[in-house]
Amino acid sequence: MTFALVMAKKTIKKEKPVILITNDDGIMAPGIRNLVEAVKDLGKIVVVAPDKPQSGMGHAITIGQPLRLHASTLYEDIEAYQCSGTPVDCVKLAVDKVLHRKPDICLSGINHGANHSINVIYSGTMSAAVEAAIESIPSIGFSLLDYSIEADFSGARSYARMIVQKMLQNPIDKHCVLNVNIPAVKEELIKGIKICRQAYAKYEEDFIERVDPTGRKYFWLTGKFVNFDKGKDTDVWALKNNYVSVVPVQFDLTNYVLKTQLEKTWKP
Amino acid sequence: MTFALVMAKKTIKKEKPVILITNDDGIMAPGIRNLVEAVKDLGKIVVVAPDKPQSGMGHAITIGQPLRLHASTLYEDIEAYQCSGTPVDCVKLAVDKVLHRKPDICLSGINHGANHSINVIYSGTMSAAVEAAIESIPSIGFSLLDYSIEADFSGARSYARMIVQKMLQNPIDKHCVLNVNIPAVKEELIKGIKICRQAYAKYEEDFIERVDPTGRKYFWLTGKFVNFDKGKDTDVWALKNNYVSVVPVQFDLTNYVLKTQLEKTWKP
Repeated sequence: MTFALVMAKKTIKKEKPVILITNDDGIMAPGIRNLVEAVKDLGKIVVVAPDKPQSGMGHAITIGQPLRLHASTLYEDIEAYQCSGTPVDCVKLAVDKVLHRKPDICLSGINHGANHSINVIYSGTMSAAVEAAIESIPSIGFSLLDYSIEADFSGARSYARMIVQKMLQNPIDKHCVLNVNIPAVKEELIKGIKICRQAYAKYEEDFIERVDPTGRKYFWLTGKFVNFDKGKDTDVWALKNNYVSVVPVQFDLTNYVLKTQLEKTWKP
Repeated sequence: MTFALVMAKKTIKKEKPVILITNDDGIMAPGIRNLVEAVKDLGKIVVVAPDKPQSGMGHAITIGQPLRLHASTLYEDIEAYQCSGTPVDCVKLAVDKVLHRKPDICLSGINHGANHSINVIYSGTMSAAVEAAIESIPSIGFSLLDYSIEADFSGARSYARMIVQKMLQNPIDKHCVLNVNIPAVKEELIKGIKICRQAYAKYEEDFIERVDPTGRKYFWLTGKFVNFDKGKDTDVWALKNNYVSVVPVQFDLTNYVLKTQLEKTWKP
């Protein structure tokens, strides 16, 4: 890997934007290959992705054990590395130990399955993008509303490419994160892009209870997605109506409305 | 456990608020015991906490493998369960399989170490609290700025108790989450409570590179905490000045400022 790392450092030219690509479904997932293919002529691509599926890892980081990072030969013409950690670990390691600089943009995905509404908070795909933005790297997470390993990524590829081009041509903000979801319909049925807010929707949990061969209980997390939000400006609405939803995301979690309220009512 | 679960259901009386307590340092950590002791006369306490340390797990959920949940005899007079999953899993399982109802409040902590500023996003302690709020359960995460297993929790206990009483007496909002950090100083030196915003501060990563006995590299995540925020209304400022910081937290991650900007500039 030392040789590859040295090469990575040498071959990155300033004139071409450096595009870091990661995901949470793992480096072997079709989604990340589709993203690489969609944007590979737009800059110098470097892939640093988990070596196994990491869905639902949220913003987890690995602090109790060390990380491994290995060069991958998965792509003939693209520098790629697989990492034993979470999607957020991948971004941190990529900046510090692969690129030795901040990339111009970080892309995450294309996720197999929706990351609209509350999914943004559980999603490793989106957390990798948020981590990049914390590091002052503009970023975009892409998700296709189709869990299938054989999903048709053609619409997602077109829109991913279009949005990355927009971001590279007109940089918005170094802390900008976009959560982009693409409906699972044929490309010609997609009506365009809608800038949205995150819908208030959540999972109604219902753990499945089973008994193992030794008689001890175990539980499988499952749940029904319920949308409580009737707004027509949400990502859930846009996707139901065959739009690509784009939600700008922030990592300042302060609830300013509640802050003002508490300042008035909690006076010493 | 079946018997304990049945008892849990039977012994929960409506007149006493039901207080769910969890953490990310694991059920054996002194911090959660201190939290239980601080509030145990304020309601009917049920503990559902990870069976091992889960620091830095953020909002991770367990979807690729099943979960275990076992009654714990750690507390003589308190119902307690240990769970094999993440802090967020604990909240989900507690509501669905232990309490069979929403508790009146969810408390998480007391964390061994700071969860101010950007730590809110990596913290399992805070993610458990946020998960509760998504479920319409008001919640509070408590953290003491002392990583030591032998930390002095006396100041943290007093303030935790005071804040839980405030929340129970004057419920604010069912989606309310408070991120409470307590400075690591003697109780008499604490100047009081400050309602704050989340500081813009982050870790400057610097992975430590080592070589294992077979000659292969591995990396340890480490980093220096850097505060870029000069504001005197932040949690970092409050804590440095010996105040208990209280930051109201939200789970709508939409960046509304950027949304308005994109609506103007990304017109079809």
